[in-house]
Amino acid sequence: MSTLALFRNEGDTRSFAAGETIFVEGDEGRNMFVVLEGSVRLSVTGRTLEKVAKGGVFGEMALIDSAPRSATATALTACTLVPVTAQRFKSLVQESPEFALEIMRVMAARLRSMDRRL
Amino acid sequence: MSTLALFRNEGDTRSFAAGETIFVEGDEGRNMFVVLEGSVRLSVTGRTLEKVAKGGVFGEMALIDSAPRSATATALTACTLVPVTAQRFKSLVQESPEFALEIMRVMAARLRSMDRRL
Repeated sequence: MSTLALFRNEGDTRSFAAGETIFVEGDEGRNMFVVLEGSVRLSVTGRTLEKVAKGGVFGEMALIDSAPRSATATALTACTLVPVTAQRFKSLVQESPEFALEIMRVMAARLRSMDRRL
Repeated sequence: MSTLALFRNEGDTRSFAAGETIFVEGDEGRNMFVVLEGSVRLSVTGRTLEKVAKGGVFGEMALIDSAPRSATATALTACTLVPVTAQRFKSLVQESPEFALEIMRVMAARLRSMDRRL
């Protein structure tokens, strides 16, 4: 099951207008986000790292290592997000190895993209 | 249980002399490696990304996304490694959520380190 399918019927969503800030580098991070609609820009010190589209996830790192946000997230378009708490994230990893592998795939894609910038 | 503890009594290990190449950027990747003894240098186009010490893992990305090696791994000192196949990696993720979270923590640390280089 795709990450989007897991969260498609979620009741608890958050909406952001285009240009609105979702979180800022250095913030304490309590949630990962799944993009249900729209797209999100991740940036570090103003440089775009990635655009996250519908079905994508971001903000997972703060749940994994409990460190502050490593990047800033901004709504590129109007968007609807599902917030996922640390507790739910750990339950999902425990119950769904496919979810764990999907998170690893997202992180691997980010690492490869960063390697290409070196 | 730590990753090292999971693999400490492994019978199938590989030894490399200081300076020896373990894999090269662009290679097809069939194994992740756990460092039992010694340390390993990861580099991209000659630039050191990271030194992986005893208990650390590397080479996991090729198992996660089946893409070629994103970096070159070289023995910094004489080292002993446990190779982990893709099949075993997936079994470990399925059987041990703690293993899955540990791999995510390793990847999160690498992403944070890359973010700081921007």
